[in-house]
Amino acid sequence: MTAAVLCIGTELTRGELLNSNATWLAESLTRIGLEVTAVDCVDDDRGRIEAYLRRLSGEHQLLVCTGGLGPTTDDITTECAARVAGVGLVRDADSLSQIEARLARFGVKLAASNAKQADFPMGARILPNPNGTAPGFSVRLGGATAYFMPGVPAEMKSMFEASIEPDLAALVSEPRRQIVLRCFGLPESEVNDRLSGLESAFGVTIGYRASLPEIEVKVLAQAASSDAALAVARRAADEVRARLGDHVYGEGFGSLPEHVGGLLAERGLTLAIGESCTGGLAAELVTRIAGSSRYFLGAAVVYANSAKTELLGVPPALIAEHGAVSAAVARAMAEGVRTRLGADLGLAFTGIAGPDGGTPEKPVGLVHWALATASGTQLRERVLSGRRLDIRRRAAFAGFDLIRRSL
Amino acid sequence: MTAAVLCIGTELTRGELLNSNATWLAESLTRIGLEVTAVDCVDDDRGRIEAYLRRLSGEHQLLVCTGGLGPTTDDITTECAARVAGVGLVRDADSLSQIEARLARFGVKLAASNAKQADFPMGARILPNPNGTAPGFSVRLGGATAYFMPGVPAEMKSMFEASIEPDLAALVSEPRRQIVLRCFGLPESEVNDRLSGLESAFGVTIGYRASLPEIEVKVLAQAASSDAALAVARRAADEVRARLGDHVYGEGFGSLPEHVGGLLAERGLTLAIGESCTGGLAAELVTRIAGSSRYFLGAAVVYANSAKTELLGVPPALIAEHGAVSAAVARAMAEGVRTRLGADLGLAFTGIAGPDGGTPEKPVGLVHWALATASGTQLRERVLSGRRLDIRRRAAFAGFDLIRRSL
Repeated sequence: MTAAVLCIGTELTRGELLNSNATWLAESLTRIGLEVTAVDCVDDDRGRIEAYLRRLSGEHQLLVCTGGLGPTTDDITTECAARVAGVGLVRDADSLSQIEARLARFGVKLAASNAKQADFPMGARILPNPNGTAPGFSVRLGGATAYFMPGVPAEMKSMFEASIEPDLAALVSEPRRQIVLRCFGLPESEVNDRLSGLESAFGVTIGYRASLPEIEVKVLAQAASSDAALAVARRAADEVRARLGDHVYGEGFGSLPEHVGGLLAERGLTLAIGESCTGGLAAELVTRIAGSSRYFLGAAVVYANSAKTELLGVPPALIAEHGAVSAAVARAMAEGVRTRLGADLGLAFTGIAGPDGGTPEKPVGLVHWALATASGTQLRERVLSGRRLDIRRRAAFAGFDLIRRSL
Repeated sequence: MTAAVLCIGTELTRGELLNSNATWLAESLTRIGLEVTAVDCVDDDRGRIEAYLRRLSGEHQLLVCTGGLGPTTDDITTECAARVAGVGLVRDADSLSQIEARLARFGVKLAASNAKQADFPMGARILPNPNGTAPGFSVRLGGATAYFMPGVPAEMKSMFEASIEPDLAALVSEPRRQIVLRCFGLPESEVNDRLSGLESAFGVTIGYRASLPEIEVKVLAQAASSDAALAVARRAADEVRARLGDHVYGEGFGSLPEHVGGLLAERGLTLAIGESCTGGLAAELVTRIAGSSRYFLGAAVVYANSAKTELLGVPPALIAEHGAVSAAVARAMAEGVRTRLGADLGLAFTGIAGPDGGTPEKPVGLVHWALATASGTQLRERVLSGRRLDIRRRAAFAGFDLIRRSL
């Protein structure tokens, strides 16, 4: 069976909004074991919405729709679904009183526009919305089972997980299971090359998602039972690990800074960072993780040379001799921030993020990084590719990878 | 006339990739004056690609497609387009030698798979690709003009701007012009309310794009000539400015940190930042802008209390008396970082980003920020809404807004 996703809303066809719902739904359906072959968007036009629902419910066995369930006059998805299903609308008393109660909590009275959110195609199954006013619903359209959800991402996701995903497992005759391996330090083309032949050898599908500069390798297996699928995925994932070596730093959804944060917390170690070219990005990547205050003490973002001296005690003579972008200054920054903040680990970056400031000897992309610990300081240097923001990101991740490898 | 966007690729229908191409194209076509009513994605399946091309070229007068022009066996868009156009494929000698030359520069020999990228439907107009191997093309499909471009965003965008956009202006009988106003400090619902009635009064379309915590208000006007459209947009944009007051900080595409950076550079002022709850984000937002070293000296990310004392000289007794999240500490941080780094302006943040750490007196979202200058220190405090990353972002932008208003 094939599945389609339909997102409804003029804000999408006008490009006012990045359609992250579509990607999230396509990925979720694929992970469960469905073959998604179409992901469409249509504007808030009655004729076009109905035409899309008719066509997609004729071409697919499963249709998952978002958007157009709100209270305003351009929210017409429910009416269109009822017309395509060939049934009338009925008001659901339970949903109405829940909408009323929810509005009352915010001190708002029920308006006619909100009441309409309790209308559903006759015979539809109602999908509760704990995070918003508009419930979703499920209805048969031709040969397809169709689900309708609000477009607000948080409401859509929780509704999908609570009310739709459990249904779908039953629809899938061959359940699919996925293992996600997280890699750092290899270009995507080389990951590809190293994994060639693995799909046919293990009977799995390999998907990639580059989330610069990390790569997620998704190993998808399908089998008669969920357990059997997981066993196939496991065998293939072990082979992926063997082929990629220690470039695989973990499984699941935590990014490299989270992984490293977990290692630091586990071992009771503290971290301080000195940043020049990364400009606060490394600290930002650490502190965006809730609970990072357990292991992160602070950072000195030392853009100006005077700041390197004032905050981290880098001697002006050292900068004059080697230049701000040098192994010597990276070392002085890492050791300086470690000592000043009394941390177990001091990580530092200095480099040329561009677009200007490069020279033949020190081109744009040149980054020195250093990790100072009680047992000494490790130095690394590379010319990183990409534009300013890519270089900063690659540098910060390379620093976290150095911590990972040294722990 | 209506327009549709079609993105081709199994990586999209599987949700492996956020479809930013679709949003970019929908927005570009809308800005030019076209009514985009469908934005579809289909997987790399011959039958389905052809069905989508047939349907969309029947329903629309303009069709813009991306993806499936690469060298691999699942890149079949050109063949499908030729079949739907009812013509054969012809190899273009010029394109072939350009592909050959490009590959030679990277030391690669032309393979059969690359040669196929020089094949086009007979009668097609070829669209050069200065940034990659695969040229695009344009061909009539039924009643529609259809454009085909590669899926790599940078190649797609430059091809669209160089070879397609100039064509489209001629297709649009009533050209559209757009003015983008950038706002900070009002919730989207209030921006909406304040602008109500403006669309009909001025004959324009108002679009919003919330790029948290900023809001872009897009004023779109359509008229017989481009100049007339711009004049209409200008009148309406002036009214938007009048209604939103000094919450509008600029026009065009520079975000608030860029705008503030421009002001600092213009006046020859330098900035230093002390960050607790924002954890490096404020510095990161400043330094992601190329050239920010002209006005940014550095930042101290002082997560631990000891770091507040060590890097910024905040007295431990002050922290003990008022707590780390307090106006007194925000002041000491702003004044400390200003003095230590010898900056004209010292900006500082301390707060509770959550999800934990809140108390009834100091709830999650409470942020104090301070701006120290030669003429004194301004203090601000608010309970910001949202989750951890939202609170950090709102806080950082509120700090930049305080600089803007004080300059």
